[in-house]
Amino acid sequence: MNDLKIRCTPEPTLRRLPLYLGFLKGISDRGRNISCTQIANEFGFDPTQVRKDIAQTGIVGTARIGYDTKDLILQIETFLGWNKKHEAFLAGAGNLGTALLKYNLFKDEYGLDIVAVFENDKAKQGTHIAGRKVLPVDKITDLARRMHVPIGVIAIPPEAAQSVADRMIEGGIIGIWNFCPVALKVPEGIIVENARLSTSLAVLTGKLHNLLNA
Amino acid sequence: MNDLKIRCTPEPTLRRLPLYLGFLKGISDRGRNISCTQIANEFGFDPTQVRKDIAQTGIVGTARIGYDTKDLILQIETFLGWNKKHEAFLAGAGNLGTALLKYNLFKDEYGLDIVAVFENDKAKQGTHIAGRKVLPVDKITDLARRMHVPIGVIAIPPEAAQSVADRMIEGGIIGIWNFCPVALKVPEGIIVENARLSTSLAVLTGKLHNLLNA
Repeated sequence: MNDLKIRCTPEPTLRRLPLYLGFLKGISDRGRNISCTQIANEFGFDPTQVRKDIAQTGIVGTARIGYDTKDLILQIETFLGWNKKHEAFLAGAGNLGTALLKYNLFKDEYGLDIVAVFENDKAKQGTHIAGRKVLPVDKITDLARRMHVPIGVIAIPPEAAQSVADRMIEGGIIGIWNFCPVALKVPEGIIVENARLSTSLAVLTGKLHNLLNA
Repeated sequence: MNDLKIRCTPEPTLRRLPLYLGFLKGISDRGRNISCTQIANEFGFDPTQVRKDIAQTGIVGTARIGYDTKDLILQIETFLGWNKKHEAFLAGAGNLGTALLKYNLFKDEYGLDIVAVFENDKAKQGTHIAGRKVLPVDKITDLARRMHVPIGVIAIPPEAAQSVADRMIEGGIIGIWNFCPVALKVPEGIIVENARLSTSLAVLTGKLHNLLNA
């Protein structure tokens, strides 16, 4: 039932659920119940929208009582697949790639497990980062196929991003988390999610640049 | 003139300009000219929209020739403030904070210069990360005021995010780059840009979870 439901889950709901999760995890006394209205007030959202978002996860609340906070956390995590491990290949052992790998930023909380790293720079190939050997990019396709890895993370210079995505998809990778400021062209059925950190920073510095020079 | 223009720049334009920049930087032969139509084709955008976005930066193209690629890169970078240095305070010396600090991910390309780091965890206070001493969070306000730092980066556990934002704003910080999955409440005139990495990952794993279980 969840599978059918998430298939129909609107992307805005997928974007809001992690916000609710962050808020719920920040509640010190998790023994208490929580209502949609309380969550909505925290974010300035409409309670009805919050109720609809949460209903997508399959949990049922009690009228005038709300949800058990611990149950709701678990339900959202399960719905997002964050309590499962997702194996991923990382392309790019530059600053960002190394940071993602070394600090395992997304492993504990979100289940993203980077199992291998690939790099075009020959000087880096054969070295180790966080216990993982840096491999040549042309090994991606074969290894992805053999290891049945579903996710590829792209943190490589923009000019190499498309060819790396092609190699990943050829190896059976179906979800790409793209940190490059390029628009990847992929076949239908392949998921691309753009992290767009540089875009986020552009909005901040662009507005700030204006304020400071106004 | 630029200042007046950026003040009116729509946020979608600020989000698209870094995409164009990534594409332009990936062009191997930068001696060539580039047209709005070529850029639009790369991203599947409307050429008229690309022309309007680029016009916001103040550069003037030549009919049927387009823009000099090098000039256009410089103009967009200047417009976004990326060739200026922006000093920033970082709150949070956990995995993400350490990665941001140690790898200086955004310094060279985007001019974000993290000059000090603050942390609630007493065990980390007094230690050094990437040559910077980790300071207690309650020093943020005084130091921000003395150093005239305009940007605060928040990569601290969600429950501490709001109080850290309050301290930053009290110290005169006017732009906050928020990596926490919480909705910060700030006075009018303060810029908050949410990096939302976890949200981006949620969309990816949520969709993938569905595909794999369908």
